[in-house]
Amino acid sequence: MLLQQAPDYPIETFVLEAIADAPAAHLCHQFVKGDINDYETVLQFGRSVDVLTIEIEHVNVEALFQLEKEGIRIFPKPAVLQTIKDKGLQKQFYEKHNIPSPAFVLTESERDVLNHLNFLPAAHKLRTGGYDGKGVQLILNESAASLAFSEPGVLEKLVVIEKEIAVIVARNETGETAIYPPTEMVFDPDLNLVDYLLSPAELNDKQTSQAQQLALQVCNAFNSPGIFAVEMFLDDEGKLWVNETAPRAHNSGHHSIEGNYCSQYDMQLRVLQNLPLGNTNSIQPSLMLNVLGEPGHSGKVKYVGLDAIMDLSNVYIHLYGKTTTKPGRKMGHVTILGSSTRELMTKAEVVRNSLKVESE
Amino acid sequence: MLLQQAPDYPIETFVLEAIADAPAAHLCHQFVKGDINDYETVLQFGRSVDVLTIEIEHVNVEALFQLEKEGIRIFPKPAVLQTIKDKGLQKQFYEKHNIPSPAFVLTESERDVLNHLNFLPAAHKLRTGGYDGKGVQLILNESAASLAFSEPGVLEKLVVIEKEIAVIVARNETGETAIYPPTEMVFDPDLNLVDYLLSPAELNDKQTSQAQQLALQVCNAFNSPGIFAVEMFLDDEGKLWVNETAPRAHNSGHHSIEGNYCSQYDMQLRVLQNLPLGNTNSIQPSLMLNVLGEPGHSGKVKYVGLDAIMDLSNVYIHLYGKTTTKPGRKMGHVTILGSSTRELMTKAEVVRNSLKVESE
Repeated sequence: MLLQQAPDYPIETFVLEAIADAPAAHLCHQFVKGDINDYETVLQFGRSVDVLTIEIEHVNVEALFQLEKEGIRIFPKPAVLQTIKDKGLQKQFYEKHNIPSPAFVLTESERDVLNHLNFLPAAHKLRTGGYDGKGVQLILNESAASLAFSEPGVLEKLVVIEKEIAVIVARNETGETAIYPPTEMVFDPDLNLVDYLLSPAELNDKQTSQAQQLALQVCNAFNSPGIFAVEMFLDDEGKLWVNETAPRAHNSGHHSIEGNYCSQYDMQLRVLQNLPLGNTNSIQPSLMLNVLGEPGHSGKVKYVGLDAIMDLSNVYIHLYGKTTTKPGRKMGHVTILGSSTRELMTKAEVVRNSLKVESE
Repeated sequence: MLLQQAPDYPIETFVLEAIADAPAAHLCHQFVKGDINDYETVLQFGRSVDVLTIEIEHVNVEALFQLEKEGIRIFPKPAVLQTIKDKGLQKQFYEKHNIPSPAFVLTESERDVLNHLNFLPAAHKLRTGGYDGKGVQLILNESAASLAFSEPGVLEKLVVIEKEIAVIVARNETGETAIYPPTEMVFDPDLNLVDYLLSPAELNDKQTSQAQQLALQVCNAFNSPGIFAVEMFLDDEGKLWVNETAPRAHNSGHHSIEGNYCSQYDMQLRVLQNLPLGNTNSIQPSLMLNVLGEPGHSGKVKYVGLDAIMDLSNVYIHLYGKTTTKPGRKMGHVTILGSSTRELMTKAEVVRNSLKVESE
């Protein structure tokens, strides 16, 4: 999606990706097939460009530190990536900067979990390598604690979640910041993936303002140009807790392509060029649905029901160009604009019932 | 711009273009370097795809007719292209379908012009090969008539133009149509290129409705799926005259990327897939400015003043990825959204004074 918007600006795009037929491969000026976790590969690639950004945190940070020394502009800064890639360091970072985040303890093994039964019920997260709900255990009681993974982790006291929200903040090299309206994420408990997302979130003015201030505080603490999606919990007492931050364009900002005057991708391109930031205001309330592979379907992808959803007014599909599907795989998203939550929900129901990702 | 939107849908894109480093070359799945005017080249290219469209009329139509016989879907239909490519046939088409268009006579040489002095003051247009104001002579009196070109042309009685407007209509294979609000084109008399474009046009409700009906009549007469930009004159008596039709996405619809719920490119992609058409409503009034090469600058392009224009709220730049500039060359466009014409004009003035296309 970044590459779809990039041609608007006077820039050339270079992409490093492990898969030769990656969806990005045909949308850039130069595609380099290579492993983003390999030091030499990232180093050589980085030396060929003026400014680097990422779409996933799991990249070789040592190479980025070296490139930064050599004068390559990197957003977010490698130090931010290093902190965020490790949920332990990330939690310590919030603690150090007085950013409210659920109480935690670092664990090395299941024994450490058993030593902190006072933290239960808790979430136990792998310090590194987790993604989209993978690498997270819910540990509600002592008997579950004995099943905890034994890799380094973070044991986090559960917050009673009223709402799960995200606020995207952009910052350029000049230090200018732009804050999007909060978005509300509703999760599918089975897949532990965002089921749908409402933007703006249904919060009162004070909550909205507090969420935006908190996101800005996180962004300023990281002290780096970039796009930051700050994920938060609103608890049953109205208090906000930072869950985690993604230092990049994020699923919780996909609706901004049609729903806001400046999309998160346009914003990211402005950051990369150190241009003034855009207008984050909503055009209309929006609802975003992930398009996931149907259960029972694996292989070459086929989309069913596109006609029915395009027949709805102000419904937009964004497929990610993946050639094969499997159950639950994120294959794209649909953004819906509407004047009320009720209208959004009605259209979402049609989308959910009509659009199916099957295999041929 | 079509290729920037295409990845949203489950389609693969193939592009035929004469220049290896064409801006489109890095935005499609497969790029073929070749001459769009060569019969064999177009035939072979067309056989490799399911559906064909064009971004310029000047393509080998004989090859398209052959491909149509072979079952390739082509939008607009080759017959439409054949009619529109030749301004003489296009005028006869309007006459046959009772579409109001300025009175005309076909000419073979300057002698024919001298034989029709009763048509003066007139526009004398090359029947084929004209583009963006090229190949058009204004012949106001007998002495100018003797300087008329001698290639086949159309001599057209001048209409007293109050406003120049365009209405874009889309039609899919099912026969569904969608009509955009009229846009108003204001020309730069020196370059004879659109200086800026306002959308919706400042017309009263009756004029708006008549312009949309007329555009629909033209689209229905062509009887082909596609995107049609119907350019019209509103004369000093309030009568509408069709000037010409572009059977493709058009400069007069560029504002629709940000200014309307469904852009002309999204619409074209829906047409190509025979999907239901999108919502043509305006999000906000918009003004579109072409970005032209500065006088005195030729060579490798450099954009000056981008910072100043991106600092304005709801101002969007679209560069076309051309690597070299020359005076007056169309290098991109800027779309401005605003709540009033006054706001649009104020921002446009800043854009005009700030953004310069220079050479390195």
